Amino acid sequence: MANDTLEGNRHRGIPRQAARVTVLIDAIEGTLADFLAAQTVALDGIDPALGGLARTARDLVLAGGKRLRPTFAYWGWRGVTQPGEPIEPLLPALAALELMHTFALVHDDVMDESATRRGRPTAHRIFAGQHASDGRSGDADRFGSTAAILVGDLCLVWADQLLARSPVATATLFAVRSCYDRMRVEAVAGQYLDVLGETKPGDWSVEQALLVARLKTAGYTVQRPLQFGLALAGPVDDPALDEAYARYGLLVGEAFQLRDDLLGVYGDPAVTGKPAGDDLRSGKPTTLLMLARRLATPAQQAELAYDPAGAVNPADGPGGPDHDQIARIAQVIADTGAPERVETMIRDRVAEAAAVLATAPIRPDSRAALNELAVRATQRPA
Amino acid sequence: MANDTLEGNRHRGIPRQAARVTVLIDAIEGTLADFLAAQTVALDGIDPALGGLARTARDLVLAGGKRLRPTFAYWGWRGVTQPGEPIEPLLPALAALELMHTFALVHDDVMDESATRRGRPTAHRIFAGQHASDGRSGDADRFGSTAAILVGDLCLVWADQLLARSPVATATLFAVRSCYDRMRVEAVAGQYLDVLGETKPGDWSVEQALLVARLKTAGYTVQRPLQFGLALAGPVDDPALDEAYARYGLLVGEAFQLRDDLLGVYGDPAVTGKPAGDDLRSGKPTTLLMLARRLATPAQQAELAYDPAGAVNPADGPGGPDHDQIARIAQVIADTGAPERVETMIRDRVAEAAAVLATAPIRPDSRAALNELAVRATQRPA
Repeated sequence: MANDTLEGNRHRGIPRQAARVTVLIDAIEGTLADFLAAQTVALDGIDPALGGLARTARDLVLAGGKRLRPTFAYWGWRGVTQPGEPIEPLLPALAALELMHTFALVHDDVMDESATRRGRPTAHRIFAGQHASDGRSGDADRFGSTAAILVGDLCLVWADQLLARSPVATATLFAVRSCYDRMRVEAVAGQYLDVLGETKPGDWSVEQALLVARLKTAGYTVQRPLQFGLALAGPVDDPALDEAYARYGLLVGEAFQLRDDLLGVYGDPAVTGKPAGDDLRSGKPTTLLMLARRLATPAQQAELAYDPAGAVNPADGPGGPDHDQIARIAQVIADTGAPERVETMIRDRVAEAAAVLATAPIRPDSRAALNELAVRATQRPA
Repeated sequence: MANDTLEGNRHRGIPRQAARVTVLIDAIEGTLADFLAAQTVALDGIDPALGGLARTARDLVLAGGKRLRPTFAYWGWRGVTQPGEPIEPLLPALAALELMHTFALVHDDVMDESATRRGRPTAHRIFAGQHASDGRSGDADRFGSTAAILVGDLCLVWADQLLARSPVATATLFAVRSCYDRMRVEAVAGQYLDVLGETKPGDWSVEQALLVARLKTAGYTVQRPLQFGLALAGPVDDPALDEAYARYGLLVGEAFQLRDDLLGVYGDPAVTGKPAGDDLRSGKPTTLLMLARRLATPAQQAELAYDPAGAVNPADGPGGPDHDQIARIAQVIADTGAPERVETMIRDRVAEAAAVLATAPIRPDSRAALNELAVRATQRPA
């Protein structure tokens, strides 16, 4: 039944919705490109080095990505607006979510010391490279982190500037900002719990892993963007609507993170753009890993109780577990049955989200698109 | 003449204005304390670890400081409002500037790897200490930096939330936000140029050092806060007023930074809370150092052409110049006559700022207070 619903949408829905999504994403990227071009010119006028900073920021923002947050916000808005309502007034606000997301990714990559994202060098690696090629003195890695923190800060401030340009009623913008502020606090809170979990993976639980997923992914990626879009539609006094978006957002967001957990261990590096077993290397205490620990036999538990921060074997040096150890841990996790459980959790959540949408007071095209997004976000290869 | 003006304000003005400033700062700190208490309760309710993050943020915000930005904003507003106008509606906006400043300080300290600020451990050192005392695995310094980046991000978002609570007219809040956004972009741009200068101090110039001072100190600390306060007063259609604030802000802000330059080399560590010769250790290409290089004899130039990133003498190891070398470089700078030049630049700017205020269309108490602030900000021991 659940599968029928999903498959049905998948096959019947894709061509029409995909075309609309492409138009939407082009419009958002056009808004971003125009805004960033103007900011680059302004900063270039103060000092060419600032123009260079702005151009690097622009390239990071425009480098691609799924543009999921503006897409969810768009459908949140579309769900309650009349056909033919123009999207132009929304575009600055939708694009602002993408600038804010660049801030989050750039700072996360500094914190995680990640070298690549989407198969390209991360911001701090780009700046470290610029530093080295300029023949400057001092530590290139330190300059890279510093410049990346500042590029992230700049994107967060730019997001506010762009958001302010949405020509919507003042009361509407106030409600939008309030939702946006909650979203940002939750994103920071989720990231803090995430890194805290990495420092004490032995004490972490399935429940804490799911809390991180709820804050960092469900809230930040789905729930709040949908409510942000709803707020953009102006005052809509229907608690059932807000509740439906909140419930769908929680379910699809958790499922999205659970898919991420699986990809972080079993994803194809050529598709994800991240090293194989990336989460095992960093020791991220994901729901998948916490479940595996709970399901493991004593012998399996011993194998899973590795410390990614130190080396398992002192002879391995400070680099943490090596390729063979990563592959072995991934196999042990599979042997516990945790991946199947996680697949079931994803399926159940996507099915329940479809059930929520079926009775939600939203327009049919938005319902179809959100069903389609639930599948795309949780059945993806990267 | 300039000195008479300053001395006159200093002796006649301090008692009355200082009392008013104390009341203002207490009100701002009360607003901050109330806001932060509510945020701490909210985050504690999600997870105790988030409550801990919020409490550390709160302690950093309430740890003190000169509260210069809200003070300039207050006098910018007061300069054009009628006597008896209540300040309560302003307090959230003024306090927001202080939250934003905590963001800037915390991120700056991560970038500069500073261990102390105002004589206390910096945010990243506090978090590194918490990490170590919890007996967690992994790198305490890395956790410290990560948590500090997130605390800074949180303060920046909180600043927006607090700003939104100022019960002022919508058009007013829009103008205030626009000024605030410019201020934040300039703060980030100034910090980027500052760190860039540190990576190539040999190529830096007096002009570039003054540009950093204009962006990072004049704009961020004085000009924009004054204009922020002016915007809070609602529509005031008087270009002479905006021009007077902009001019005063530039002059006093540059003078403020020039005083910082002198304190960074000759300040008393017991008063500044920073190590002696801190700027020489980090290689910050200040106006003072750039002027010294320009005025130096060839022999002095050779002594000033040290590389703070590497050691002057390989036998000194990687820690940069030692205490005796710092003292020697400070002496060479003094011998070039640069410090007297900088003192003259400060004096000239404060005098010109007083002249600007003398004809500015602002209320007399605001004029007196801004004259007093110009002196306090530029004749301070720390």
